[in-house]
Amino acid sequence: MTRHSGDEDISLLVKALLASYRDNPDIVAIEARHRINRHEVLDVLEKLQRLIFIGFFGPRPVRWDSLEYHVGEIVEYVLYILQRQIRRARHCREQAGEDPDAASRRIARAFLERLPEIRRLLADDVQAAYDGDPAAFSREETILSYPGVYAVMVYRLAHELFALDVPFIPRMMTEYAHSLTGIDIHPGAAIGHHFFIDHGTGIVVGETTVIGNHVKIYQGVTLGALSTRGGQFLSGVKRHPTIEDHVTIYSGASILGGGTVIGEGVVIGSNAFITKSVPEKTRVSVKDPELQFMRQSGRVEFVQDFVI
Amino acid sequence: MTRHSGDEDISLLVKALLASYRDNPDIVAIEARHRINRHEVLDVLEKLQRLIFIGFFGPRPVRWDSLEYHVGEIVEYVLYILQRQIRRARHCREQAGEDPDAASRRIARAFLERLPEIRRLLADDVQAAYDGDPAAFSREETILSYPGVYAVMVYRLAHELFALDVPFIPRMMTEYAHSLTGIDIHPGAAIGHHFFIDHGTGIVVGETTVIGNHVKIYQGVTLGALSTRGGQFLSGVKRHPTIEDHVTIYSGASILGGGTVIGEGVVIGSNAFITKSVPEKTRVSVKDPELQFMRQSGRVEFVQDFVI
Amino acid sequence: MTRHSGDEDISLLVKALLASYRDNPDIVAIEARHRINRHEVLDVLEKLQRLIFIGFFGPRPVRWDSLEYHVGEIVEYVLYILQRQIRRARHCREQAGEDPDAASRRIARAFLERLPEIRRLLADDVQAAYDGDPAAFSREETILSYPGVYAVMVYRLAHELFALDVPFIPRMMTEYAHSLTGIDIHPGAAIGHHFFIDHGTGIVVGETTVIGNHVKIYQGVTLGALSTRGGQFLSGVKRHPTIEDHVTIYSGASILGGGTVIGEGVVIGSNAFITKSVPEKTRVSVKDPELQFMRQSGRVEFVQDFVI
Repeated sequence: MTRHSGDEDISLLVKALLASYRDNPDIVAIEARHRINRHEVLDVLEKLQRLIFIGFFGPRPVRWDSLEYHVGEIVEYVLYILQRQIRRARHCREQAGEDPDAASRRIARAFLERLPEIRRLLADDVQAAYDGDPAAFSREETILSYPGVYAVMVYRLAHELFALDVPFIPRMMTEYAHSLTGIDIHPGAAIGHHFFIDHGTGIVVGETTVIGNHVKIYQGVTLGALSTRGGQFLSGVKRHPTIEDHVTIYSGASILGGGTVIGEGVVIGSNAFITKSVPEKTRVSVKDPELQFMRQSGRVEFVQDFVI
Repeated sequence: MTRHSGDEDISLLVKALLASYRDNPDIVAIEARHRINRHEVLDVLEKLQRLIFIGFFGPRPVRWDSLEYHVGEIVEYVLYILQRQIRRARHCREQAGEDPDAASRRIARAFLERLPEIRRLLADDVQAAYDGDPAAFSREETILSYPGVYAVMVYRLAHELFALDVPFIPRMMTEYAHSLTGIDIHPGAAIGHHFFIDHGTGIVVGETTVIGNHVKIYQGVTLGALSTRGGQFLSGVKRHPTIEDHVTIYSGASILGGGTVIGEGVVIGSNAFITKSVPEKTRVSVKDPELQFMRQSGRVEFVQDFVI
Repeated sequence: MTRHSGDEDISLLVKALLASYRDNPDIVAIEARHRINRHEVLDVLEKLQRLIFIGFFGPRPVRWDSLEYHVGEIVEYVLYILQRQIRRARHCREQAGEDPDAASRRIARAFLERLPEIRRLLADDVQAAYDGDPAAFSREETILSYPGVYAVMVYRLAHELFALDVPFIPRMMTEYAHSLTGIDIHPGAAIGHHFFIDHGTGIVVGETTVIGNHVKIYQGVTLGALSTRGGQFLSGVKRHPTIEDHVTIYSGASILGGGTVIGEGVVIGSNAFITKSVPEKTRVSVKDPELQFMRQSGRVEFVQDFVI
């Protein structure tokens, strides 16, 4: 099969790549039977979305009289794929004497047992999205279209797998949601009920963040670490903030540091940069973001009475 | 079919989910014959892109001698799918005495009649993208690659459906574009001709925003509401700004409030936070974003003469 | 085939579109045999990812004993598709006397010869990602999940094609990565080794940016131009900054201007807005981003001792 002249040289390109695989083995996964299959993980995620928002996303309408069969088929498939991928993900953590198949099956089952509780939380998140956004037409619209609802769903699923000590897979799921929504929630974060994200692009919620109930955050908000210069030495340390109940954080605000606590009922204004705790029921805003107005006539005036 | 041991327990997982569907019915769409099929809506969107930028995106080259058949086939398909989805979307708004099939067909047709006008606007948007970006190699490149051109195309299509009072579908389309581009334009916004978005990630344009002609905005710009604490009580109220002709808004700026008017020819500097109207032909910039420079020697110097 | 009544009117819709294609020919690609096939370009990109991170992303595990055949098959396919698309992309730049097939084949081959060097750089980028992020579980996780690693891989591939003077295709690739990650790196930028992007959403790296080794940047950072009012007159001019070795730039900072040089070892704090050069080993932070705290009791206090 000669698709083009010059085939004789393909072998040189191939040989150079084979040498490269030996020279840079850190980014190679050859003979990696335990390699996770990203495609299967994302397929499971899509099936879990169908189970959670039943009837909204599948190819056909769902009927009550065949619901049990429909759900049973998806559950069996998810269990089968998920336990296989969990086994691969846990390969590096297998313990002596453990039956790795049984362990991964137990974990996959424990995860699926959490779905009703995850649905309870998501029903409240959907309500919070509808209540919180004047542009929302109905709850149904937030399920079908809102990136925040999708990102929170994926986070809640991934968080359960993270809590069951499954490596790789939770982050794969949340980074997929990040790719679709611009919302980057680490599966290790702890987030209460009635959580609403509006618009969402650019949001970062770090691994050790703790968020209470009825919290609302907007696009571009970072709940992050003060510095990551420690790199891997900081692994496991609480380095992201705690947000208590009924807090609203407007667009572009950054709240940083593991000791930073934002008290109950606080409102953080747009673009605020917070590295210290804020007591409850406080409104924080950037003071005097002084603007310069220059008319084409050349006259310059400063306006200072500028508060959000 | 026993894929693994433990099948006997699947029924417990299924029963728990069935109970959950009864317990949290708000996020359930069972027996929902009028449920919108997201897959079909996005398929229509892809076909509309082919009709608009004819020849750029389909699998095969398009030829003049078969153009009529090619276009006719796509138009017929779009009309068929779109009227079905419009009928479903309008289910909740059907009026007594109306023939819902005829109404949805009439709306789908009225929408398609707008395509030539949408193409006229997009030809100007593409020209604005090419003129406005020194990195643009050709108009063709902006059509093939620029997220801003794609997001504006989807907005212009969705806006027509929004104007025809179609629920759900317009937002589904713009949120899909948001997912692909990071640019979140509500279909309700009104946007003039020669509109150019550069880079785009993080842009939010709210539902009641009005934008004139020859406007240029950069990544991270929010045209938003001052507060959404009113939630659903604010539905329908003008809460987003008005941007007049020939305005440029640089990255990260926020312009908030339904009464805020940015006058003709204004330039808004990066990161400005604007909640009051700005008169025409004014340059607004953040004054003295004072920086602290700390050398490793320990010397600290403040520099104040810092203006964009 | 009558799918619905009203077919007689489809011809009116089609005629209007045909007229529109004649009226707005700038956004039409009819009889465009040299039109680039975006689907094939993105398919090549996916195959290149498999060649680079061998074994991580394909459908089946990769084995040493069949590795040569596996790699050979992908290389042949990539060469075949890529030279065809390169030929189309270069259509507008063909030179008198040149054999366009031979030229595009030579370029495609020269590009593939660079893969081992690109892999060397990416092995260091992956190491930098693992070292720099306390939340990274392993190098493998950064390859499988980190948007920054993906965006840098696509940039490094596109940059080689850009350096080989291939139009259209490099930007198509980086804009696809932009769509998936929110990270917008122009293929013309020059970036050294051990480059790490964390989170990444909203990052913009302009066409003439120069970045040294061991540089780390966070979400929302812009390395941009001071003004693009010159439009196409600025094409080719150095208008983006130079970042020297071992620089860290925290979230939301903007560094603008072709003459702006950030010296070795500098740390730029979050949200800093920089339009002038910074000498080596300096920490730059926004001074006194003064906050206003308003308690519900009505008491207002200002806090000034606020430094990142």
